[in-house]
Amino acid sequence: LETLTIINENFIPANEASVLISDLALQRGYGIFDFFKTKDHRAIFLDDHMDRLFHSTEKMRLPLRKTREELKALLAELMKRNNIADSGIKITLTGGYSPDGYMLSKPNLIITQTPLVLAKEMNTAGISLITYPHQRQLPDVKTTDYLMSIWLQPLIQSKGADDVLYHKDGIVGECPRANFFILTKEDELLTPSSNILKGIVRKHTLDIYSKRGSASERDITLEDVRQCKEAFITSSTKNVLSVTRIDGEPVGSGQPGEISHWLWKEIQSRINQTI
Amino acid sequence: LETLTIINENFIPANEASVLISDLALQRGYGIFDFFKTKDHRAIFLDDHMDRLFHSTEKMRLPLRKTREELKALLAELMKRNNIADSGIKITLTGGYSPDGYMLSKPNLIITQTPLVLAKEMNTAGISLITYPHQRQLPDVKTTDYLMSIWLQPLIQSKGADDVLYHKDGIVGECPRANFFILTKEDELLTPSSNILKGIVRKHTLDIYSKRGSASERDITLEDVRQCKEAFITSSTKNVLSVTRIDGEPVGSGQPGEISHWLWKEIQSRINQTI
Repeated sequence: LETLTIINENFIPANEASVLISDLALQRGYGIFDFFKTKDHRAIFLDDHMDRLFHSTEKMRLPLRKTREELKALLAELMKRNNIADSGIKITLTGGYSPDGYMLSKPNLIITQTPLVLAKEMNTAGISLITYPHQRQLPDVKTTDYLMSIWLQPLIQSKGADDVLYHKDGIVGECPRANFFILTKEDELLTPSSNILKGIVRKHTLDIYSKRGSASERDITLEDVRQCKEAFITSSTKNVLSVTRIDGEPVGSGQPGEISHWLWKEIQSRINQTI
Repeated sequence: LETLTIINENFIPANEASVLISDLALQRGYGIFDFFKTKDHRAIFLDDHMDRLFHSTEKMRLPLRKTREELKALLAELMKRNNIADSGIKITLTGGYSPDGYMLSKPNLIITQTPLVLAKEMNTAGISLITYPHQRQLPDVKTTDYLMSIWLQPLIQSKGADDVLYHKDGIVGECPRANFFILTKEDELLTPSSNILKGIVRKHTLDIYSKRGSASERDITLEDVRQCKEAFITSSTKNVLSVTRIDGEPVGSGQPGEISHWLWKEIQSRINQTI
């Protein structure tokens, strides 16, 4: 069975899905997207992702020309036809086919579905980050701009690290595809409040932890990170993933922390409740 | 006669030229390009553009897999087949078809040619700019990242302006598609030295002016701009274009300046020497 991709109203074999080169996502890097998982044929935290997608379309003037219910129906049709139980679904809106290569045109809607192997247990290896000074432009929008993070890959690899944590003048931001958290020695959970993309698992993590302790969104310095007990990242694909080294130095004990593990299980439990 | 576009080794009717949606320029905004004019079937300042293109391919790890001579031969073939005397030629290299949607793959080479109506005289209307705090990422590379400038279009229009001049903490940078110059009251020509894309017409402008006066690359503040006698922008499409208003205030006399006009003619003369 061939996997299908949606381009505007059409279902197209995934390996043939194409756009004209005049699209502004290609010519000018102008596009937005959202991404969510399916598990056992159910979309995970779908309304959260719809909220964020519609925020992005509005802020970036890329109208979907569909109601939320129409989009959900289209997604359901794609999931039915593709019949992939566990997957990642990516909804992209581009700047469209611009006659002059600069002015926005009618957005192209692209929806892809790809199989995902979902982890049954938390990855307990822990990951290693480097820090790098960078601030994403239009940070509250999930744009297609990953120029810096892809450009940084050789540096990340040369340091034996797995990913990069951006900061601006020593104030911590986010990873390219994940939010960042620390647990202080006083068991306070902290995550950056501004100039970041607010992730869906980030939201659920704050909500879950706030039922047992103090969870705050505020500025975090690199010095706060050096003093913390645990650090982890959150994302739709990773749920919760421990950070055990930053810039070559161990974080806390240098081992994945208990709270990270507990949060992974709590997020997993919320995911299971939705299916 | 149908205009042709090159995609890798293939000549394709321009209105059918497409790429698969897995290309990283579309998915992740990872691409570079260069753009030059042709006049009377001759490429203008071609070696300057080749120098910059090869700098971009190297820094961004997007190998062209062609020597400069092979690329020139391909451009000559396109120009011969399309037979458009006055045109703009855009050479784009994308991050390629990435299996995982993140790691760089074999770059796609896209070359388009579109007719241009070249001005015989300088546009003496002068343009109006707004200033906006922004720093392009990887500024010395001509990337496809125009996210901010396209997003700013409604603000620019609401102010009755034509374009935006970026600054960082009051230090002037560049326009999205042009370099910025001021002429001081002491007839010193100044243009920002760092954190910008070094344009080809910028280079020729500095060289031309240095034969009659002082031309320097250095930091310019917004206050310097308020005190200047003339301001103008340079680009391959515009040559030299006077800036007569910034943030609603007149620049110098509020009329296009003499030096801007003289430089336009000198640049035009160099262009004519190449054909």
